[in-house]
Amino acid sequence: MKILALSAGLMAAATTAFAQQDSLMFRKISDEVLLNGTCYDQLRVLCKTVGHRLAGSPGAEKAVKWGEKAMKESGADKVWLQPVNVPQWIRGKESLELKMGSSYKSVPTLSLGNSEGTGGRPLEAEIIMVNSFDEYKKLSDKAVKDKIVFFNYRFRQDFVNSFEGYGDAVAYRWNSPNVAAKRGAAGVIIRSMSTGIDDFPHTGSMHYEDSVTVKLPEMAIGNITADELEAACKKGKVLARMKSECHMNPKLVPSYNVIGEIKGSEQPERIITIGGHLDSWDVGEGAHDDGAGCVQAIEVIRTLKAIGYKPKYTIRAVLFMNEENGNKGGHAYADSAIAKKENHLVAFESDAGGFSPRGIGLEMSDAQKAHIRKYKDLFMPYNVYDFDHEEGGVDISPLKYKYKVPLAGLLPDSQRYFDYHHTANDVFEVVNHRELKLGAVTMAQFVYLVCEHGLE
Amino acid sequence: MKILALSAGLMAAATTAFAQQDSLMFRKISDEVLLNGTCYDQLRVLCKTVGHRLAGSPGAEKAVKWGEKAMKESGADKVWLQPVNVPQWIRGKESLELKMGSSYKSVPTLSLGNSEGTGGRPLEAEIIMVNSFDEYKKLSDKAVKDKIVFFNYRFRQDFVNSFEGYGDAVAYRWNSPNVAAKRGAAGVIIRSMSTGIDDFPHTGSMHYEDSVTVKLPEMAIGNITADELEAACKKGKVLARMKSECHMNPKLVPSYNVIGEIKGSEQPERIITIGGHLDSWDVGEGAHDDGAGCVQAIEVIRTLKAIGYKPKYTIRAVLFMNEENGNKGGHAYADSAIAKKENHLVAFESDAGGFSPRGIGLEMSDAQKAHIRKYKDLFMPYNVYDFDHEEGGVDISPLKYKYKVPLAGLLPDSQRYFDYHHTANDVFEVVNHRELKLGAVTMAQFVYLVCEHGLE
Repeated sequence: MKILALSAGLMAAATTAFAQQDSLMFRKISDEVLLNGTCYDQLRVLCKTVGHRLAGSPGAEKAVKWGEKAMKESGADKVWLQPVNVPQWIRGKESLELKMGSSYKSVPTLSLGNSEGTGGRPLEAEIIMVNSFDEYKKLSDKAVKDKIVFFNYRFRQDFVNSFEGYGDAVAYRWNSPNVAAKRGAAGVIIRSMSTGIDDFPHTGSMHYEDSVTVKLPEMAIGNITADELEAACKKGKVLARMKSECHMNPKLVPSYNVIGEIKGSEQPERIITIGGHLDSWDVGEGAHDDGAGCVQAIEVIRTLKAIGYKPKYTIRAVLFMNEENGNKGGHAYADSAIAKKENHLVAFESDAGGFSPRGIGLEMSDAQKAHIRKYKDLFMPYNVYDFDHEEGGVDISPLKYKYKVPLAGLLPDSQRYFDYHHTANDVFEVVNHRELKLGAVTMAQFVYLVCEHGLE
Repeated sequence: MKILALSAGLMAAATTAFAQQDSLMFRKISDEVLLNGTCYDQLRVLCKTVGHRLAGSPGAEKAVKWGEKAMKESGADKVWLQPVNVPQWIRGKESLELKMGSSYKSVPTLSLGNSEGTGGRPLEAEIIMVNSFDEYKKLSDKAVKDKIVFFNYRFRQDFVNSFEGYGDAVAYRWNSPNVAAKRGAAGVIIRSMSTGIDDFPHTGSMHYEDSVTVKLPEMAIGNITADELEAACKKGKVLARMKSECHMNPKLVPSYNVIGEIKGSEQPERIITIGGHLDSWDVGEGAHDDGAGCVQAIEVIRTLKAIGYKPKYTIRAVLFMNEENGNKGGHAYADSAIAKKENHLVAFESDAGGFSPRGIGLEMSDAQKAHIRKYKDLFMPYNVYDFDHEEGGVDISPLKYKYKVPLAGLLPDSQRYFDYHHTANDVFEVVNHRELKLGAVTMAQFVYLVCEHGLE
């Protein structure tokens, strides 16, 4: 019993010593980012000199150059571009006019990404409004035929985590043109996936099912216009005139993932990937989505270098291309890892906005989750407490389902994200410097933790 | 053993049933606020039709009328005004010019609250810069005499909780004119207590010690101007020309706390106070500080009524007057409670901004803290997890130190607060509707919890 007691005592002492060292390093990381961090300035440059950057656009090309430069400035040992062919969707001109009274009125609108427009010609039809797919199913075919269907589904504000609201609503954006085409509708208007109490329309990706032969145009309107349209539809007949030039280039075009790494000091063959996506939608500046994740990943590299930490494993920051409408960058990265038989320990993405971090999503085995959760207390002084959600990120998801790599995802406060998401209002000014930096702190601390204590 | 086991089983079942009922009520509160809450609209009205409202100003008078009306609209059983005499500080015109090169340049500035100005006459003197009180102490008396002392203390961005940074820096605002007067200085300029990376000067209260016979003027400058001035001072001689009319009315003037209550259904003599402060500084719109707390307290009343909850105890929402520069409202409320021998169970203040809630500060006995913490899990689905800080609020503090009432304080995310605090930029537009509402949810849930399960 005495020996056992002693062992326990020694173990406790050792644990405490470890914990103290970890705690000091966590603080060192935090101080470095909060006092000397460059991610906020990097984000300003990305937003203000590049701006929005849809895959395949001139903006994306500029963004790749920006990313390469920023990665080099971070002090990465090696920086390279990984080729990836991406879809090229082009918005062109667009307009939506609604006749809710005696005359047509132009309203703010955005065509949904990947959709085909009206070929630049006016498409005029009567609107039929439904509040849900259930309501839609109850309509007669005749009621739908040749109409523009207005899917007036409201983003549920009662979800405390706004991502749940998004998950609940997003099918209306993604799938409405398919269900409408099947019954001979002429076009689709949707209420934006938006928590905003404003009139910004939110774009985002949709898709056409292979079985659908007619590619209907789909346009989003903001909440204020949607309220107005809802009221008008309840009162009587409303006409809409859609006009849009958007189309998908039938060919993929060349682009790149931007990659920078710190070579591991002991086991360089083992790789920890951190990242965000470099592309954005073609409005606003892609500040929260996902300029934030990109500059945070770069900040992790800069910070580890600045504090003189030599990670045991290779740390690789990846700015993925084409998360928004194809995820070709995520696939290219995973495919390359598989082809080269790379040894990936874990991948950690930040793609939920540059807001105050609250937790780290863990998409990994129960044993790995349990292992990470043992270190929860280290994160508490940084207000990071939530390790109970299963969340990775879109870009890193192919690493998991193709290559079984465990994933982690930054979980920032979600309240404001869907006010800005995919809108012209997702600009540098709506990102707070301290919130953005704290996200980078969490990522760097996680990387340190895995380097020191592994994943299980 | 069998009986014991059975008892334990029954107890567990009872606990579970209680917890389920609590959990449902927590959800009901949250749904009501998130879906039907009026606090954001109320805040818009307060900010845009009243605006800033320093105690003793015409704005404060309008705010009292607004508060009375809003409280009545909330459905409170009874609404009244509690008289309170408040100080009246008047800013008047002010300007600060700095000669950092060949000529004077006007810079953004705000005199500190309660300070006496230059009587509207220019005060011109050389600047002597110090980075801290320690540096100041090392100066010779001669170096300080007749100079304008620039206290260039930086808000420490390395604190993760920005209120710690504020606590660390605030003495420079509060006390600098006293230490400077003692050595014959002519005036004081301070770097604002600000996390902002902008040029907004931050006002806030200062005081003159009784022992100090000369009341020096004190002006704050924003971080960008402070950086510029710091660089200029390092290079050579800098002159400043202060001009300000600010002064304190030697007499107190009449004003009010606004109070509304729901009468308790079982023990109406026991009172739970919730509140924020109605006054603000005389710039911006006092949106986060503390319009947010006021509309959240009113929202709690509205919500409990709307869901048909009949609280056992009396719930009293108080919009306190004069938190910013005297706390006369807080004292008047406590004094009245004592005079009437009221039975106060607990008081809960929201005065840390309308940001996403993270916790509830508990300034009460260990037994009471332990009791509240038993219900932590109920708050987790609302992302409220922090019950480890000892925090109440300035307005309710006299209830504690004069009358031993336990206190609680809303703990929102602190990252953005000191970007806006006491500036012209603390306006309605920088408050997010969902964050504001969630703060009200937390307050209402706490009130429900104490009504159902007491405080110990």
